[in-house]
Amino acid sequence: MKTVNLAEKLAMFSSHWDPHVVADYNGNDVMVVKFQGEFPFHHHPDTDDFFLVLEGEMVMDIEGEPPQTVDAGELFVVPKGVTHRPRADQECKVLLIEPKGEPNTGDAATAASKPRI
Amino acid sequence: MKTVNLAEKLAMFSSHWDPHVVADYNGNDVMVVKFQGEFPFHHHPDTDDFFLVLEGEMVMDIEGEPPQTVDAGELFVVPKGVTHRPRADQECKVLLIEPKGEPNTGDAATAASKPRI
Repeated sequence: MKTVNLAEKLAMFSSHWDPHVVADYNGNDVMVVKFQGEFPFHHHPDTDDFFLVLEGEMVMDIEGEPPQTVDAGELFVVPKGVTHRPRADQECKVLLIEPKGEPNTGDAATAASKPRI
Repeated sequence: MKTVNLAEKLAMFSSHWDPHVVADYNGNDVMVVKFQGEFPFHHHPDTDDFFLVLEGEMVMDIEGEPPQTVDAGELFVVPKGVTHRPRADQECKVLLIEPKGEPNTGDAATAASKPRI
């Protein structure tokens, strides 16, 4: 039970699309992650997906909808079941919340390991 | 399903200790709130309590522990059942996550209404 400084946590790794767990909330992993380039389109059949941009800008592509720009200080929640793809031309730093055990790609075979830092 | 700008939402009200819902995540209210002064000590028997400071600085008093300072860009999760009190000498802007229906005071008789904006 202590204060978590997100910039300090983000300084501990440089990899992209590699979420790191920094806190727990009711069975959810609270993570920081760096985005650059394009993630694959995917969906989470059983959970919403929470994104808060901390630094930089990302675009959220949503199947069948116009792309949504999400800047620093803005959040975007993808409802469960909705096919989506985050992307970022320049490196973008994000707070991500997903239930523990949820594959970040929607598929356990391709999911990141979500180490705790 | 759209981008939520937190500063725009925070500009829509000036009251303190008055959380406003800006998004939903898996049955949780994602809220913005302004703190100034001292909140009552309370606890949530069935849920963790998620705080991310967006602007300013708050102190989290925890029963039986040293107070924790939480600055902008820092988060603090109070585990369920732990008695706590947020306070802030100057106005502080916070992202707050609690399950829908959870009284912010831990007691329905004194809880804020949590309007959606």
